[in-house]
Amino acid sequence: MTTETVLRARHDLSLPGRLAKSAAITGAGAVMATAEFTGWLAERAAANSFRVDRVPLSELDAWSADPATGNLGHRSGKFFTVEGLHVVTGEGPFPEWQQPIINQPEVGILGLLVKEIDGVLHFLMQAKMEPGNPNLVQLSPTVQATRSNYTKAHKGAAVKYLDYFTEPRRATVLLDVLQSEHGAWFFRKFNRNIIVETQDEVVPDDEFCWLTLGQIGELLRLDNVVNMDARTILACAPMPYDEAGALRTDADLRSWYAAERSRHSVQARRIPLSSVDGWAAADDGSIVHERDWYFRVMGVRVQATNREVAAWTQPLFEPRAMGLAAFLVRRFGRVPHLLAHARIEGGFLDAIELGPTVQYTPKYYEHLSGSQRPPFLDLVATADPARIRYDVVHSEEGGRFLNAEGRYLIVEADEATAPADPPPGYHWFTPGQLNTLVSHGRYVNVQARTLLAALNTYAVEL
Amino acid sequence: MTTETVLRARHDLSLPGRLAKSAAITGAGAVMATAEFTGWLAERAAANSFRVDRVPLSELDAWSADPATGNLGHRSGKFFTVEGLHVVTGEGPFPEWQQPIINQPEVGILGLLVKEIDGVLHFLMQAKMEPGNPNLVQLSPTVQATRSNYTKAHKGAAVKYLDYFTEPRRATVLLDVLQSEHGAWFFRKFNRNIIVETQDEVVPDDEFCWLTLGQIGELLRLDNVVNMDARTILACAPMPYDEAGALRTDADLRSWYAAERSRHSVQARRIPLSSVDGWAAADDGSIVHERDWYFRVMGVRVQATNREVAAWTQPLFEPRAMGLAAFLVRRFGRVPHLLAHARIEGGFLDAIELGPTVQYTPKYYEHLSGSQRPPFLDLVATADPARIRYDVVHSEEGGRFLNAEGRYLIVEADEATAPADPPPGYHWFTPGQLNTLVSHGRYVNVQARTLLAALNTYAVEL
Repeated sequence: MTTETVLRARHDLSLPGRLAKSAAITGAGAVMATAEFTGWLAERAAANSFRVDRVPLSELDAWSADPATGNLGHRSGKFFTVEGLHVVTGEGPFPEWQQPIINQPEVGILGLLVKEIDGVLHFLMQAKMEPGNPNLVQLSPTVQATRSNYTKAHKGAAVKYLDYFTEPRRATVLLDVLQSEHGAWFFRKFNRNIIVETQDEVVPDDEFCWLTLGQIGELLRLDNVVNMDARTILACAPMPYDEAGALRTDADLRSWYAAERSRHSVQARRIPLSSVDGWAAADDGSIVHERDWYFRVMGVRVQATNREVAAWTQPLFEPRAMGLAAFLVRRFGRVPHLLAHARIEGGFLDAIELGPTVQYTPKYYEHLSGSQRPPFLDLVATADPARIRYDVVHSEEGGRFLNAEGRYLIVEADEATAPADPPPGYHWFTPGQLNTLVSHGRYVNVQARTLLAALNTYAVEL
Repeated sequence: MTTETVLRARHDLSLPGRLAKSAAITGAGAVMATAEFTGWLAERAAANSFRVDRVPLSELDAWSADPATGNLGHRSGKFFTVEGLHVVTGEGPFPEWQQPIINQPEVGILGLLVKEIDGVLHFLMQAKMEPGNPNLVQLSPTVQATRSNYTKAHKGAAVKYLDYFTEPRRATVLLDVLQSEHGAWFFRKFNRNIIVETQDEVVPDDEFCWLTLGQIGELLRLDNVVNMDARTILACAPMPYDEAGALRTDADLRSWYAAERSRHSVQARRIPLSSVDGWAAADDGSIVHERDWYFRVMGVRVQATNREVAAWTQPLFEPRAMGLAAFLVRRFGRVPHLLAHARIEGGFLDAIELGPTVQYTPKYYEHLSGSQRPPFLDLVATADPARIRYDVVHSEEGGRFLNAEGRYLIVEADEATAPADPPPGYHWFTPGQLNTLVSHGRYVNVQARTLLAALNTYAVEL
């Protein structure tokens, strides 16, 4: 039997326009007004009881330190381990260091289900509790699941809406890209960032709501509302940036990136947690740096009524100071350009990715002066409010990090402060050029993606 | 002082057409007829004297085995080392193994200089001797240099035309992409694959000649003429594939790739060469597998009159049997599609890349039967000649591998032998879809790239 093969178009050419249409809708979508959202989120938080208590690492259930290495692991062998990392870069103010690191080799799914309602794409968002969120409940993607999660290593309830992302042909894939997460805290971790579109009637469960891209943009102007998992997916959405041109061709920028990669030599080697230099167990049962810098590795006991399992314990990383991540922006020939930094992070799979212009925890650079100070840090930290186009506090993945808040900014610069011909390691990209790159994995780091999500959703317009 | 910023178009939209125009020119370019080429190459080989002698590893100059690990290294600490690798995949007929591996963390440059001559893009190709080439001299890119090479670790002569690739703005970058090399022999190695275009008058040195893409395609129909370094760059050229559609959207295929990546768990760990299980020193001073399978690690002494240094010794890997790499091709809706395989190789940076449908050294699978036999291997190995569209022997990088020949094929299949809905791990891509993917690094492996080079240069038309 021979059947006629139906060829498809390689690309859904309507997609960028449909996304832009959704991003332009603010105030109210087909289902909920943005003004109602805060009340809805509070209601969802109130509908369930959550409790997070600190416990010594030694008192975690099902987690224990390996006698030989001190590495923390779950008895199932799944989820993640906390190990040590030794990094040698040979450059900058910190050319070599050791630290604890989260090793999570499984590839998880961060998935957004979208659907046209009244002709406008709506995104199925979830009010989700994560123990590390400063406010516990934030707005998450439809699905946020480690492989252990969705293969049921914890023997809990099924992940809702998961089959839209795991069963081919259940929905139309709009994007699916492997993206890294925090290279300072994770060893070569990445997740699939997925958006799929359905034609099904989907009745949102209690914790879920349909929002337009523009409504999500409104929420991205608020502190600690849209979680990291949602932000990173939104950053990958192929938006139609209407730009007359760019300072450099895409080929030039790709070449600069390849040259940046080749000029750095980074060695990152996992070592036993118990041998990490400068870190030790503290009286409260956590693992801390000798100056109490960077983060603590600590334990929590979590009780919740609406998660796949009702109670559990786990380690978390708790940063000791607030981070700062900022893009400088300039207009060249009236087209906005963002200054990207080819950054080394010890946990990157391949040495560098593009980050924002500035990405530091300022506290750990206070003792440095002159040429040792990171470029542009002071410019951002002391920026005239009139130059600040975006300034919002977001927190990082609350399933691994406790109160990991960072201040995200977009700051106007000029030729005197950020020249068109920038210093080595930096280059100007239009938002459209970064949008093209981020459709592939491992070019753009998670902090830069948070800022790109603000652009994609029109939370800020340059 | 304010100057008007001149924006550029992000892409050279004329490039695919200009490449296609060059690919269509066969028989003679502006400088040399293809018929003259073989004579020219022989002349270049005769103009210089080369001599390659086998020597025991222990008699290499400047190379020695580390007393603690047995790892082979150069006294400068540069070039590469030969170490051990322990790989665990937990799947297939070989779920775990150890082997020697080349560790070359430096990122080298494989560069092609192109120029429009009489309105047609010509490629500056080089007749280059590499000690491992079965015929010593093959056609290479303009520049082929490790970072040690071009930063002069060997204190030799400068690499010709190098500055076109290392000095920004010396030429126009057409592409620059980090691509992996053989994951079975290299630990996470990759090189920059670069094409730059110049407007300069370039007088080719004795070893260099200008050829059109079509002429290179003619040479890609010959055994052992166009070297691997040239092939991998040519594979990345953005050709205009005129296809009415595809079986699957690009987003579907990217999603399939991400799902393939996430379902495999590969652990690859470097170990001391002296501890590699099943490998040992042989009487001739090489390192061999207990069954004399796979490859030998052996030494050569090289004498040459036209290389950056006149004489040197080095280790090489010498495969013990010929490899086979083949794409199956089918037409769906009259559009050709190639069956790609998401392959695990122990030396890949990130577990998998897309390879040809079949990529094996058949000898090492002879003992396997039934479901243990790799899919499609027998189909390719016993293909009716009438179904074979391409069948050429190419050799791999002669700077690291001795007589590493592989037979490269493209073979027609049908629904009975290769269904439209293929087995797990396989998917159908149009050449245009693979061409889009290969413009980014680490999606498409080096064997698949050799076959894509044959398509890009019209060595074979499907």
